Amino acid sequence: MKIFIVITGSEFTMGLKQEKNSLFISREAVKRGADVIGITIAPDNIYSIQYAVKMALDKADLVIVSGGLGPTEDDMTREAISEAIGVPLIFDKDWLDRIKQALKEQGRQVTDGIKKMAKLPYGAKKIENPVGRALGFIKVLDDVNKAIAAVPGVPSEMRPMVLKLFEMLKMKELAGRIHLFRTFGKPEAEIDQILHDIDGRVLNSSPKGVDVFITDKNSFFLQNKVAVVRERLGELIYTEKEEEMEEVVGRLLREKGLTLSTAESSTGGLISARIVNVPGSSEYFMGSVVSYANRVKTDVLGVSEKDLMEYGAVSEPVAKQMAEGVRKLLKTDIAVSDTGIAGPTGATPEKPLGLHYVGYADDSGVKVHRVVFKGERNDVRMAVSQYALNLVRLNCR
Amino acid sequence: MKIFIVITGSEFTMGLKQEKNSLFISREAVKRGADVIGITIAPDNIYSIQYAVKMALDKADLVIVSGGLGPTEDDMTREAISEAIGVPLIFDKDWLDRIKQALKEQGRQVTDGIKKMAKLPYGAKKIENPVGRALGFIKVLDDVNKAIAAVPGVPSEMRPMVLKLFEMLKMKELAGRIHLFRTFGKPEAEIDQILHDIDGRVLNSSPKGVDVFITDKNSFFLQNKVAVVRERLGELIYTEKEEEMEEVVGRLLREKGLTLSTAESSTGGLISARIVNVPGSSEYFMGSVVSYANRVKTDVLGVSEKDLMEYGAVSEPVAKQMAEGVRKLLKTDIAVSDTGIAGPTGATPEKPLGLHYVGYADDSGVKVHRVVFKGERNDVRMAVSQYALNLVRLNCR
Repeated sequence: MKIFIVITGSEFTMGLKQEKNSLFISREAVKRGADVIGITIAPDNIYSIQYAVKMALDKADLVIVSGGLGPTEDDMTREAISEAIGVPLIFDKDWLDRIKQALKEQGRQVTDGIKKMAKLPYGAKKIENPVGRALGFIKVLDDVNKAIAAVPGVPSEMRPMVLKLFEMLKMKELAGRIHLFRTFGKPEAEIDQILHDIDGRVLNSSPKGVDVFITDKNSFFLQNKVAVVRERLGELIYTEKEEEMEEVVGRLLREKGLTLSTAESSTGGLISARIVNVPGSSEYFMGSVVSYANRVKTDVLGVSEKDLMEYGAVSEPVAKQMAEGVRKLLKTDIAVSDTGIAGPTGATPEKPLGLHYVGYADDSGVKVHRVVFKGERNDVRMAVSQYALNLVRLNCR
Repeated sequence: MKIFIVITGSEFTMGLKQEKNSLFISREAVKRGADVIGITIAPDNIYSIQYAVKMALDKADLVIVSGGLGPTEDDMTREAISEAIGVPLIFDKDWLDRIKQALKEQGRQVTDGIKKMAKLPYGAKKIENPVGRALGFIKVLDDVNKAIAAVPGVPSEMRPMVLKLFEMLKMKELAGRIHLFRTFGKPEAEIDQILHDIDGRVLNSSPKGVDVFITDKNSFFLQNKVAVVRERLGELIYTEKEEEMEEVVGRLLREKGLTLSTAESSTGGLISARIVNVPGSSEYFMGSVVSYANRVKTDVLGVSEKDLMEYGAVSEPVAKQMAEGVRKLLKTDIAVSDTGIAGPTGATPEKPLGLHYVGYADDSGVKVHRVVFKGERNDVRMAVSQYALNLVRLNCR
């Protein structure tokens, strides 16, 4: 099945807002074995939407339109589709009654704008909105196995309605098609070299590492490839699910019954903030000392003033004492620490931009790792936080 | 000028990667007075790209294609454009020589794939790549004032080359057109009500508040609207630039020569991590204590064990003592604190999901604010961090 996605919204074509719905729709479509042959974003203008719909229908079996189903004058998707396919709009009586009833209970008026949200092309099947009032629909066209569907643009409404649409079309998620490996520890070019003979790989690099998508239309072949990739990437893989490093680490800590604390300088609390992203993290995470100023390193964490003077804040002994200090202060099994130069300034001939010392302490002692990350300040700090969490993962398996 | 943007990449149509280049290109185009009449994302397939280019050229004065100019077989944008406009590709000798020279110096071979990156349609003007090897170009078509341009998809190459393209086209950034107000403190619906009579407003809501874009094609009328909006929104506005709350707060603290620390429970270090997002924050930010466990609240911050027992961790006295405790421990002028229930669990009949106490301490004492934020765990925590930073802003003006 060939799918074309049309997104409406002048906020996107004016560059005022990042469009994200098409990512969800295409991902879900591809999981169900469909090919997304294009995505068009049209401004809130009936002619632009109509043109996009016609061009999409010309090539695709199914066109999914998201957005423009609300109550305002800017919401013109229904009208545009009606014109494009030459089918008039009618009220869905049942849905209109439900809207009227709901508004009556709230003591609110039923405006024309609100009524409009119960309209759909004649002969279309409705897709009920579990959150809001705008009705979605799918209309099978007279000519040759083509259909057009519309769902709202509000993500919390769009998502369940797109899944409902695929259900109505009997498009089930396939066992294979895409497999995700999230890796940390090697740059994209190196991973690409390791996997040079694996077709259908898509690599996606970020400060959190390299995500490797392995794709195949045949699930048997996909599983073969997946086994090879798993073998080759080994412990670089921190998960094969759509989850974050902090979730993996949280699971390991909970399994082992271990507690964690952090002492952060360069990352400024980012490691800690990521750890508490995970619901239930209070079971294993005690807290953190962000020792941005040297005085906090010495006064709170007990870092030696002499070492700070002699080796500087960005040094192996300081990272070591920070990890030891916070582990003792917060009484945890494990502690991680970091100190470094995130940039854009602060580098010296001996200490390049991006240089970091990351410490890991547990009951067997402390180990400090020297690493250099390239990039913008916040990317560097994200990479350091990922490195620190990865140390916990590698040491707690 | 009507612009249509075409983005290439199967990673986008497969839902494997968020497409972001079109946001930058359309924003820059709109700033220069152009209308973006559509954006199409095409998979890496010569027919799909060709179709997208043709449909775009049919309606627009200028089509900008991003992506698919690299050395691999998947990179087919040049060929697709050449076919679509019926103009053959030729080598830019000068650029080819430069590539060859660079590779020679690195002792690397010049493959056909690499050579391809020096090709452009006959008669096109080249857009030099300041970062990589792929040449961009703009080709004016024979028929009626239409042109097509191509730039790479790598953001660090795409951005300067798009700006160069606009420069070549003498498209200067206009004084008015879009004005941004970033606000915090009222929900989107309320802001929309306040601005109900201002045409061309686009509201963008997030846990960080509501961004209000005021647009007008005429800069005189834009300035009139901007003055009205500024008056009406007043101190809800934390900036009128594309900057974050932590940058605003950082500027204020530096101006006043004040230092800051944080004591975080629910936010888990997020406030601190955001403060150090700003280069030079070490001038005013000393550090943070993330007291996720109650033991850390009592042992490190000196929160009364009795009050913790009596009122619970999510309470006004605890927030108060956390702010006082960290201000004393880290010896700062100002301290903020938070304790709350970010969810998804932990609520009680008296303490609903999203309830937070946010403390602000300075030399005149401590004030604690009780707030409730709705939403997912991480959205709630982001909103709390924004609330705390906003307290610093409002108190340090």
